[in-house]
Amino acid sequence: MSEKSLIPSTVNPDLQKERNSASFNVEEFATWWHGGAEKLKFKRELENYMFKDMEEDNHLTQYKSHADIYEQAVKQAIDAAKKLRKLQEERNPGGIDIWPELYNSSLLWGAMPAGNPFGVQFVMLVTALKAQGTDEQYADFGKRAANFEICGTYAQTELGHGTFLRGLETRADYDRKTDEFILNSPTLSSYKWWPGGLGHSSNYCIVVAQLFIDNEAKGVEMFFVQVRDEETHMPLPGIDIGEIGKKVGFFGVNNGYLGLKNVRIPRTKMLMRNAKVFSDGTFVKSPASVLTYFTMVSVRCIIARDDAIMLTMAATIATRYSAVRRQSPINPNDPEPQIIDHVTQQLKLFPEIATGVAYRLASDYLMSLFDITSNEIERGEYGRLPEMHALSCILKVLCSYDATEGVERLRLACGGHGYLTSAHLATLYVYATASITYEGENTVLLLQVGRFLMKTWRNAISGKPLSPTTSYLVDIVKNNSVEKWSGTWENMVKHLEFVAANKTRTAFESLTQRLKAGQSEAEAANNTGIELIQAAESHGRAFVCATFLAQVRQLQQKQSSPALQKVMGNLLELYLVNTVLKQMTNILRFVRLSETELRTLQTRLEKALIDLRPDAVAICDGFDYHDRTLSSTLGSYDGNVYERLFEAAKKSPLNQQPVPKAFHEHLKPFMKSNL
Amino acid sequence: MSEKSLIPSTVNPDLQKERNSASFNVEEFATWWHGGAEKLKFKRELENYMFKDMEEDNHLTQYKSHADIYEQAVKQAIDAAKKLRKLQEERNPGGIDIWPELYNSSLLWGAMPAGNPFGVQFVMLVTALKAQGTDEQYADFGKRAANFEICGTYAQTELGHGTFLRGLETRADYDRKTDEFILNSPTLSSYKWWPGGLGHSSNYCIVVAQLFIDNEAKGVEMFFVQVRDEETHMPLPGIDIGEIGKKVGFFGVNNGYLGLKNVRIPRTKMLMRNAKVFSDGTFVKSPASVLTYFTMVSVRCIIARDDAIMLTMAATIATRYSAVRRQSPINPNDPEPQIIDHVTQQLKLFPEIATGVAYRLASDYLMSLFDITSNEIERGEYGRLPEMHALSCILKVLCSYDATEGVERLRLACGGHGYLTSAHLATLYVYATASITYEGENTVLLLQVGRFLMKTWRNAISGKPLSPTTSYLVDIVKNNSVEKWSGTWENMVKHLEFVAANKTRTAFESLTQRLKAGQSEAEAANNTGIELIQAAESHGRAFVCATFLAQVRQLQQKQSSPALQKVMGNLLELYLVNTVLKQMTNILRFVRLSETELRTLQTRLEKALIDLRPDAVAICDGFDYHDRTLSSTLGSYDGNVYERLFEAAKKSPLNQQPVPKAFHEHLKPFMKSNL
Repeated sequence: MSEKSLIPSTVNPDLQKERNSASFNVEEFATWWHGGAEKLKFKRELENYMFKDMEEDNHLTQYKSHADIYEQAVKQAIDAAKKLRKLQEERNPGGIDIWPELYNSSLLWGAMPAGNPFGVQFVMLVTALKAQGTDEQYADFGKRAANFEICGTYAQTELGHGTFLRGLETRADYDRKTDEFILNSPTLSSYKWWPGGLGHSSNYCIVVAQLFIDNEAKGVEMFFVQVRDEETHMPLPGIDIGEIGKKVGFFGVNNGYLGLKNVRIPRTKMLMRNAKVFSDGTFVKSPASVLTYFTMVSVRCIIARDDAIMLTMAATIATRYSAVRRQSPINPNDPEPQIIDHVTQQLKLFPEIATGVAYRLASDYLMSLFDITSNEIERGEYGRLPEMHALSCILKVLCSYDATEGVERLRLACGGHGYLTSAHLATLYVYATASITYEGENTVLLLQVGRFLMKTWRNAISGKPLSPTTSYLVDIVKNNSVEKWSGTWENMVKHLEFVAANKTRTAFESLTQRLKAGQSEAEAANNTGIELIQAAESHGRAFVCATFLAQVRQLQQKQSSPALQKVMGNLLELYLVNTVLKQMTNILRFVRLSETELRTLQTRLEKALIDLRPDAVAICDGFDYHDRTLSSTLGSYDGNVYERLFEAAKKSPLNQQPVPKAFHEHLKPFMKSNL
Repeated sequence: MSEKSLIPSTVNPDLQKERNSASFNVEEFATWWHGGAEKLKFKRELENYMFKDMEEDNHLTQYKSHADIYEQAVKQAIDAAKKLRKLQEERNPGGIDIWPELYNSSLLWGAMPAGNPFGVQFVMLVTALKAQGTDEQYADFGKRAANFEICGTYAQTELGHGTFLRGLETRADYDRKTDEFILNSPTLSSYKWWPGGLGHSSNYCIVVAQLFIDNEAKGVEMFFVQVRDEETHMPLPGIDIGEIGKKVGFFGVNNGYLGLKNVRIPRTKMLMRNAKVFSDGTFVKSPASVLTYFTMVSVRCIIARDDAIMLTMAATIATRYSAVRRQSPINPNDPEPQIIDHVTQQLKLFPEIATGVAYRLASDYLMSLFDITSNEIERGEYGRLPEMHALSCILKVLCSYDATEGVERLRLACGGHGYLTSAHLATLYVYATASITYEGENTVLLLQVGRFLMKTWRNAISGKPLSPTTSYLVDIVKNNSVEKWSGTWENMVKHLEFVAANKTRTAFESLTQRLKAGQSEAEAANNTGIELIQAAESHGRAFVCATFLAQVRQLQQKQSSPALQKVMGNLLELYLVNTVLKQMTNILRFVRLSETELRTLQTRLEKALIDLRPDAVAICDGFDYHDRTLSSTLGSYDGNVYERLFEAAKKSPLNQQPVPKAFHEHLKPFMKSNL
């Protein structure tokens, strides 16, 4: 089927009409959104450079067998690594801002549609070797991993153990006689399970194991273990290794399992920057480090940001499609309108655009707080740490939940066509939903934030000072009331904070009651789990709204055009009204709103949709996603939806022959037998 | 890797413990759930008969290429057809209760894990040929389809046209000279697109097209068209046919496209039971049939029921897993508990069990109403039709939404392992979510129900009698108040109805206001869309709750054990409390509840979880799903989760060789170049 492309070189006229009538300058939006003209320019150059020689459509990955997808993933990940290193050398030799820093960036998703089996090698293995290994260890084997002379991953999670680190079963026994550790997986549930790239894409890895000396448990440590031969790639003796099987997404990431049977490694392969084992078996514990969980703060900011990106990608696809698709006349004898003119369709699209913007801004803001906190920590100030930890947890939670739901809502807004893999919406979904689980399962994180709020509330009661983003609790402790409802943006944020404070208060009261009834702190917390989670969520929602508001106010003070300020204001208005409406159960529990006030909110919601209608396509254009990044038949810049759907179908391997094998082998004999 | 199975022949002890401590008799539950001892017995026999010679694990389907999956789907669908026909002959020769009636039943999902490319042939093609064709036509070609001498599908949806039937572009022009119709797809957007099995699994199909006589449009009619040669299966001249490409689910269903270019068929191939075209070109319109949409009522009942089944399947998998998985001590020094002991986990599991039960009961009840209505229609009584239509729409909507969300919540409740395809939860998800779109897109249906409620409200105001399930609206029209909140089951249902009535009222007021402001009925309805949807949802929720309550009351009057009544009561309690809490925004808008009353609901929610805790596994056992139907490493009856996960991984094609091709071709050369 080497017919010439069906795709017109022109833009779909309905989409062009949308662009012509936007109220603001898209390039100004894109420049602001991407952090300045220079960054935007680099982004575009990078995309062109990375994508220019990619020939196969990304959606064709989905037709392949699992084994073929893996093959493609390895090839594309190595291609991408080569290109990035070359660019690094050209633009900033010796730096790391391009390679390896962009290797896992969302900018490269379009270059590796099957996923990256070497992602963990750079995000976690090299970082851990640097942070946890001594300088000699890093020079010895860390650098080799950084230089991609070897390939590896970070193996912590086990078949039977995830969240609860102390429960890990893999053991490393120190053998004084040979100055070695002996690693073992004593049970099936102790098999390492999940590490990305562990299956067939690692010849080394860090194994997190329980250290035993003279059969005495010393706690969890990290060991650098060779698992495959460098020349033949065959598993080494005592190593049972492979991949864990097909997953819902991340098809080519090659997550693996690892069983160890009397695998001996030299003592010097335990990472000893902090804890140490000497040759006589003396063990020196790692100094308790407040920093261990600080790294996770930035990791969670990145997850939140990536989720926001997935949501805005999905919004771009669905919004463009909704401008092109025509269906169901509003007045019976009118022609079919663009579906973006149906109010119910607007309600599916525009709130997701606003949510994506809100989370991108919130995660950027949190990242800037992270940098400030890093500096403070270097000066020995740790005060902001618990707050940062809680904020990064709750942002990751809300962003992953809302992006997942939002992407799905947007997929459904594309009707049947959204169900085709070539729409790329389902792929975004399986990536987004995975982030609900990894790097801190959401419920676990919510409970942590809930407990943080309990502690904070206790501090507030006893008059201790609170961190900036929880200081609103103090006001409520002092005087449990909120200013009269006026419906201004500031007033709505105040009400969301009031709700969060009262959810915290009621959870605290339930907890206290259980403690008084004789339950242990832990039991009481488990039994108050539902309320803790609700308090944490309310706290997070208030934070995201407050941040969005602050950013819009800031933009209004900057050198930006009134048109841009206006459209951002429209997004904020929709986001706040929609959030308040969704939180109405909680609000009405603590504040009485009149029927008229509630009706006004409904009217504002409807008006916000009308106000955004002319700019919806242009806002998505302003996100400036490359067509290869979107990889979507429904969402390409030119809007030639039906031609792309049809061309994509024509490329299905099943369509390369007019009659499938199954006809002759199964179908025809059966039908003949029925004659 | 032909090692012998790792799976122990014993049941996981934690799971056995759950079974031993259940408060009721599982077999009694299963018998009641499946409609009596005889039906349960047949179900089990059918499963054993269908599954006994299946060798390959169902989850292995996921590793295959798209083309191989199609091959498997054809083979398995034909195998299943053969088996069912044989069973029909053995058990009830000449009947249709087994073949073809069970061909698309959920009981057979385990037999066709890649989906059924011939499903539409029996659900829609044969039915339409019978209902819309004359007796001669059915004898001529309908019987051939029923007898599987030919294969076919029903082609209505087009690339550019779904919901809006009148918008279809495919045309059939009558040619008086040759007594033929000439079929054409005048545009790309008029290509047929989506019909199941159309790709490569049909040699005939019904084409729904605009009939033209002398270039004058006569409306949409059905035409029986041959698309492939019976011997060679090659597409016939003028036929452009193939599959539409990979989808999120239904991998093997082979949904297809079809373009027609001057395809001529005899006049007698238009289905003429109702409308008619005579050889002189005279057209006789179909008598307006109130029954056209009645068929959809039963289709939507079945969709709702299947969704409920998916939800209870997912609940079974996640609940069993939660009894086996241990994680995170509640008290710091305790051993890790079964995760089902974490309150937050219970909140993920038990409400979904209750929801699945509620929807199964509601869809069964609606199906019984359908039968009553069918009889009424035969007696010429059409009064119940609009009500039935609205109920089937709203039930399909709620059930598909809630099952989809519930299945996903349950998947997430299984942590990382839920992300493996061998858990089978993601497969249930992609099937459930598809039902949001097909056979009436949910938003479209919600708007229909909303408009039905507007009409009903208008009738109520003007004193006309209302149908039974909307009669509660009359009370509110007369006197807009509700009995005092007491929190009994009946009282909660009353409040949900009160909410539905008031959502209907406020939507009606908004609509009226817009009409007064000069908008057309259609414009006003579009602009009131959000409120219409909300009213429809509230109406549906009240109905499902009322039905569940009625069924539990009925059970209490039947010959059932107090233990069974108790556990069903616990499920109802959880379902009602949870629904009321989720609808609290709406309730608080119209009813004032005190802080104490709200706290009581929270306490009841927590208590309902505690009450269900000992019976959760047993209830799922009572659903009586065959392991092959569940197809889940996490959810099998014996609970040997880790062994099954490991064995499934070992079967991954990538694990059949220790070193993948990609190492030698890509990875090694690259690493060597970095030395």
